[in-house]
Order: sequence, then structure tokens, then C-alpha cells
Amino acid sequence: MQELKHNLKIRKMAWIGTGIMGGPMCGHLMDAGCEAVVFTRSKAKAEPLLQRGASWARTPAEAAGAAQVTFTMVGFPQDVRDVYFGENCVLAGAKPGGIVVDMTTTEPSLAVEIYKAAAEKGIRAIDAPVSGGDVGARNASLSIMVGGEGEAVETVLPLFEKMGNNIVHQGPAGAGQHTKMCNQIVIAGTMIGVTESLVYGYKAGLDLPTVLQSISGGAAACWSLDNYVPRMLRRDFSPGFIVEHYIKDLRIALEESRRMNLQLPGLELAERLYTKLQRLGHGRSGTHALLLALEEMSGLEIIQ
Amino acid sequence: MQELKHNLKIRKMAWIGTGIMGGPMCGHLMDAGCEAVVFTRSKAKAEPLLQRGASWARTPAEAAGAAQVTFTMVGFPQDVRDVYFGENCVLAGAKPGGIVVDMTTTEPSLAVEIYKAAAEKGIRAIDAPVSGGDVGARNASLSIMVGGEGEAVETVLPLFEKMGNNIVHQGPAGAGQHTKMCNQIVIAGTMIGVTESLVYGYKAGLDLPTVLQSISGGAAACWSLDNYVPRMLRRDFSPGFIVEHYIKDLRIALEESRRMNLQLPGLELAERLYTKLQRLGHGRSGTHALLLALEEMSGLEIIQ
Repeated sequence: MQELKHNLKIRKMAWIGTGIMGGPMCGHLMDAGCEAVVFTRSKAKAEPLLQRGASWARTPAEAAGAAQVTFTMVGFPQDVRDVYFGENCVLAGAKPGGIVVDMTTTEPSLAVEIYKAAAEKGIRAIDAPVSGGDVGARNASLSIMVGGEGEAVETVLPLFEKMGNNIVHQGPAGAGQHTKMCNQIVIAGTMIGVTESLVYGYKAGLDLPTVLQSISGGAAACWSLDNYVPRMLRRDFSPGFIVEHYIKDLRIALEESRRMNLQLPGLELAERLYTKLQRLGHGRSGTHALLLALEEMSGLEIIQ
Repeated sequence: MQELKHNLKIRKMAWIGTGIMGGPMCGHLMDAGCEAVVFTRSKAKAEPLLQRGASWARTPAEAAGAAQVTFTMVGFPQDVRDVYFGENCVLAGAKPGGIVVDMTTTEPSLAVEIYKAAAEKGIRAIDAPVSGGDVGARNASLSIMVGGEGEAVETVLPLFEKMGNNIVHQGPAGAGQHTKMCNQIVIAGTMIGVTESLVYGYKAGLDLPTVLQSISGGAAACWSLDNYVPRMLRRDFSPGFIVEHYIKDLRIALEESRRMNLQLPGLELAERLYTKLQRLGHGRSGTHALLLALEEMSGLEIIQ
């Protein structure tokens, strides 16, 4: 799908949730010539977009009512639920024939629920969670995992292409969210492996940067090793991707896996370890702070 | 250290253990001009080297007695113990001033034991486990993790450079083995994350190769995802690296971590899952057969 380059047919879009991810993503669409109507809980967060010519809506319904396509990029599943089903919600405002696109990482079952409720009103719904973090949002280099019907996805594709460089249609409604869960489950494993390896190497008396020289190019190679270990060794646990949001994702994946009668002990372990990390006061730290939970369990602190 | 290219000063070496790894590694040293004396339990496995001009020794002691440097590449820690401390062993045959190099992945504490016993006889011992598998052994592209004293390591370095492309001196005796454990601990995490992700994605009804398109280039990127998933999807569980040997490594890492009072729950989980896989009859399959243990736990089989 990346090869296809469409002309932008959508000129008017709404954007709900203009935080650290949504802000720059909406900005890319404005750069591409879209007229934007924005709504976000704290208006201050929308100011940069308003100064660049976006117009302000007082409610999600008002925003959706003014646009052909409405994007949502909020925080937790309950926020998504409020925006789509609460008072003055997107589905109350959006016009028949319109498209709504939830880019929040949320429950696959909620994506299906939105899809069905939208369909009853003649509105097409797409789930399109992303990976790539705030850097990917700023650089328009996100991976966008898309669930929904082909025609609606094709219509929105030119807009996705302004925000990401790896856009893949994964299947029907919910498939984008399920794919994001696959992504988060792999990361659960890599984060545990990397942090336990560091704890072991430290306690064994090794020089950790020297260990990396031996192991980072072979079968142990992973993004987490390359990107997080340098920060861990500097004891820099600022996000990146915050622990609270990752716990949300892990719990969604766990709940879905239980619904599907799957036993995923690594995922369960990750949820326990990250919950422990949150209890240690690191809910707003980056996910690589997992090292601190492992250190705490073994009563040590790695000092470079 | 990779930049340094030394002239080969060592002309006569012994090689003990000429299997799938040791055979090609010894061959590279012969290609570089080393005269080789070989010993291995099944003489048939040494035939290709003997036909190329290596001479045969009837015991490890005889091999070591004829060489400046003796390499060992055998199977399990007990094999290493037999070769170094058993009847007609390497340490009985090696001459004072000589060097012995164990390239088997074995216990860090055993490496230290060999080092001390060797030192009493005026022999210098190095531990130098590798990663890169049989392909790395054939292509001389191994990562070699070296523990031992600097002067002995420097002396053997030109030989290591004929077998690998990433040679790193990690510290004193045992440090090579500890580094290999760091490598195996990371892999424990990546294998669990990758296999659980596949099981989840399959059960969620996703098309797994399409999932890979979304997730393999981002924060979930890892060697295991790139290299093992295509084989898993073909249901090709041939090794690669066999489960029994990986279980050996995991148990060494666990034992060492317990000795150091570390809690490494991901490592513990990996050992349990791989032991389960072995009980399912897959001790001689490749490590990516872990998928089968996860499938068994959830009562399903992934079919493409």
C-alpha cells in the first residue's frame, strides 16, 4: 500500500486529542492542505494548531459535524468511549457518509463496538493505532496498523501517508488494534530479556557497554537493546513511552488473550513486573525503567 | 580489537571436538597455515580435517602435548570437565607456557576452575564461547566472547580473527562465559515475546505475514522475529540451535543467577517453557520450536 500515492480528496477533517502524538499528526495533515477543526480536553494543547489556522470546536460532536473524516487520538479506552459514546460525542455529530478513525491504542472489542454503532448511522469506522512514539509522530514515520473496510481505508490512505511511512491494512474492524497488541507482546519479551541480561551482567562484574559490543549484533539483537540500554546505563528513565500507557496495553492484550482462551505466561509476567514498577512510583517514567523493578527484586542498583 | 591484524605466530595447535561447530572452526585455522593435531570422540567426525592434513591424537593429553595452543569445542559442561580433568586430559598433556582455550558454552565457575588448575601447571587458560551458530562457524563470522588474561588473549587473537568477526575481550577468566549468558538471557525474552505474539495474532484471526509487515521494523524489531518467524510459519522446526543445548545454557544462567542472589523471572519462565518443549519430544528441534509449547498450552496449532 505504501507505493500508492493518492491525491488528497479530503479537504476538511476533524482532530480530537491534540497531545504529544495527536498534535504533530494533525499538523502534518494541515501541512498537506487539510482544513482542520480541533477539539481537545485542555484547549492550551491545541493552541499551536489554532495559531496555524485550525478552527476550534466546543465538543467532539461539533468537530465531527464539520468534517468528512474525524480522527481521534486520546489516552485510555475510557477516553475513547467518552469521545464516541458520551455526551456530545463524535457519533452524535458525524454525518452519514463520513468516516471516523480512532488512532488511540485501545481494545479490539471497543473498535468493533464503535464500528457497529457507526454503521447504524451510515458512518464508516476505522481503527488505526500506531507505533513509533512521539518521534515517529513528529517525523511522520509512524507504523500505522489499520482495521476496517477496504473502501473506507482507501479513502483515508492518503491522509495516513502524511503521518506514517508504514501503513498496512490488517483486516476488518479491530484488526488494527489486534496487530498493535502483537507488537506490544513482542516488546514485553524483549524488555524482560534485556533488563534481566543487564542485571545478570552487572552482578557478574562485567562492563556492560563491552557486553553490548559482543551481543548486540547477533541473535540477541533487538530494538530495545539498541535504543534503551544506553539510556538505562545513563540512569535516564524519562519517556519515551510511559509505563502507565504500556500497562494499559498489556492489560488489553491479557484480557483479549483470556477471552480467546490463550495462555501467554510471558505477557502475564510483563504485566506483573510493570505493575510492580508503577507501585514503585514509576508510572510516568519510560518503559525502560523496568530495569528498576528488576534491580529492586534483587536488592541492587546498577551504577555506571 | 577487530582492527588489529596480527601475523600468525602460532604454527601448531590442537583441536578437541570437531563437530558441527568445531570442525569448520578448526578448518579456518588450517586454512590460515596452522598445523593441526585433532582429537574427537567419534573419529569419523574428524575425517574431513585428517584428509586435509591434520594429524590424529589418541587422547586429549596427546593432542595438547603436541601444540602451543589447544582449543576445545565440545558439548556439555560434563564433557568439558572430562576433557580438562579426566583421564588423559588436556591439562595432563599441555606443556608449561602453553595456552588452552575452551570455546564451549559452559559454566563461568568451571572456566575459573580450569583457569586456576591450568595456572598451577604454568598453563594459561582462556574461555571463549561464541555465538553465530553453525552458519557463523562455516563463514568465520562468529562473535567470540573472551575471558582471560590480556597477554594470553593477545597471543590467541590472530587465531580468533580467523574464526570470527567480532572478538571482544570481556575481562578475566569466566567473563567470556558470563557474557554468553547475557546473550542467552536476552534471547530467552525475545523468543517468548515472538512466539506469544504469533499465538495471539493467529487466534485473533490476523494474517501473520501481514502482521510482520507492520511490526518488524519498529520497537518490536528483533533478530528472532526476522529469522525464526518465517521458519515457524512454514512449520519448519529443524535446527538452527537445538533445544537441549539451549536448556543447558538456560540452566547455567539460572544456577549462576541464584548463586548471585538474583531474581530473573523471565529466565525462569524460559527454562520452564523449554523444559516443557523437551518433554513434548522436541529436545533435538530448533529453539524456535518454542512455538509448539505455547500452542500446546493453548490447545491450538497454527496452520498457514
